[in-house]
Amino acid sequence: MAGKLGIVAGGGELPARLIEVCRRKGREVFVVAFKGHTEPATVSGVDHVWVRLGAASAAIEPLRAAGVHDLVMAAPIKRPSLAELRPNLRVARFFAQVGKRALGDDGLLRAVIQGIEEEGFSVVGIDDILDDLMAEAKTYGRHEPDEQAWRDIERGVEVAKTIGAQDIGQAAVVQQGIVLGVEAVEGTDALLARCAGLRREGAGGVLVKIKKPQQERRADLPTIGTRTVLDAAAAGLRGIAVEAGGTLIVDPADVTALADESGLFVVGLALEP
Amino acid sequence: MAGKLGIVAGGGELPARLIEVCRRKGREVFVVAFKGHTEPATVSGVDHVWVRLGAASAAIEPLRAAGVHDLVMAAPIKRPSLAELRPNLRVARFFAQVGKRALGDDGLLRAVIQGIEEEGFSVVGIDDILDDLMAEAKTYGRHEPDEQAWRDIERGVEVAKTIGAQDIGQAAVVQQGIVLGVEAVEGTDALLARCAGLRREGAGGVLVKIKKPQQERRADLPTIGTRTVLDAAAAGLRGIAVEAGGTLIVDPADVTALADESGLFVVGLALEP
Repeated sequence: MAGKLGIVAGGGELPARLIEVCRRKGREVFVVAFKGHTEPATVSGVDHVWVRLGAASAAIEPLRAAGVHDLVMAAPIKRPSLAELRPNLRVARFFAQVGKRALGDDGLLRAVIQGIEEEGFSVVGIDDILDDLMAEAKTYGRHEPDEQAWRDIERGVEVAKTIGAQDIGQAAVVQQGIVLGVEAVEGTDALLARCAGLRREGAGGVLVKIKKPQQERRADLPTIGTRTVLDAAAAGLRGIAVEAGGTLIVDPADVTALADESGLFVVGLALEP
Repeated sequence: MAGKLGIVAGGGELPARLIEVCRRKGREVFVVAFKGHTEPATVSGVDHVWVRLGAASAAIEPLRAAGVHDLVMAAPIKRPSLAELRPNLRVARFFAQVGKRALGDDGLLRAVIQGIEEEGFSVVGIDDILDDLMAEAKTYGRHEPDEQAWRDIERGVEVAKTIGAQDIGQAAVVQQGIVLGVEAVEGTDALLARCAGLRREGAGGVLVKIKKPQQERRADLPTIGTRTVLDAAAAGLRGIAVEAGGTLIVDPADVTALADESGLFVVGLALEP
């Protein structure tokens, strides 16, 4: 077991789940939490430091003092504007260096990782820590897509790949061949909430969530969890398709149980690279 | 002046505007209105027939009886599911014939037009009737995009072309390089309402609305109007960019006045074909 793990914690349930697993495995952690993004409950009872997004470099000394070498990026941080960042000098210099590369989410994250590694840390993938969370090529639970659902999944993969290649988002909802919605910065929760009102009569749609073709594996992997299943059921969907080896399933046992209970399918797709 | 004009009326303000222009020009009209889609006010005092989307062929005899030869498709009809359509036999046969082509909005509309022309009607473009409504390559009003806004417009055009090529939607909102939202079936009004809550600090974003690359010019051209300007202002945007020769501006004089008043720019872009 490696030394103390630095966890760069965004919003959502993933950081808390990661901390819990480390505790269970006896691995010490030190959390970098972002004001206005990380849930305060996530860091209660855990060594941590709060920083502003625009002053993330303020976390460097506390991380060193805590003896952290390996860092993991847990969960996405909703993309802020540069004005919200109000970057301090060090961070402003960083942005000046990365320049246009920082335009998309993925470009930004890759640049952030490079900047962190230049400070002497090693950024590891969350799936190196939580090897049991990466989606596999299989059906989770007992419900299977029917022929119409498979056609919707196929169309959803095509759409999600297109918007992913443009660094717009990771998810799409398709019902009977109709693209009900595509995700940009609003996130999958908001996408599903909106699709509830856009639902057409007849067989419900599917949520497809896959990683962007050029996505940095060590940051912002697409994630689903129990909340995704609940939201998908509330939106009248019939199931969820994710990318085997490319999407994290937080609490796969709970997701499976909940999918069975709600009558939804959850499938991991083996996609062509 | 040609004979009586058949107007296939979807939702929104375009059909009413078209009827008003025809009345002013002395051209007789006969309106096909769709239950649950067309505003009832649109057809008050005008010769019309109400039909179900799934039984649109029921409009054929009334159109013939009214002496209509030229038909125009005014305003989009929100894409229904096949279940909502409950197609009658004639329409079901039509869908069976068009088959997979009907999957996207544009494929469906092109197939519908072909079906109408096989019935002996001639489908004309709305811009053949309302030649003063097609966006020109110019700035409407006195506000101009600044450098940041031009970069956002450029990104928005790229995104809108991508989703258009996939037959997903026609519009995108970009702020400081961040894609706040892309349109699918929810329509531009809902897109703008959502982007109000996703707004980042600092310089506001832009709405870009252009036609799909493969779009059938005689149906469902992207449209903006005074409502679009009001919604864009409410969402904190700084302006709207449309495609010269590819987007309709309903009431360009009112749009210009309202844009000036709200501090928004409205530009028509000359895009490469």
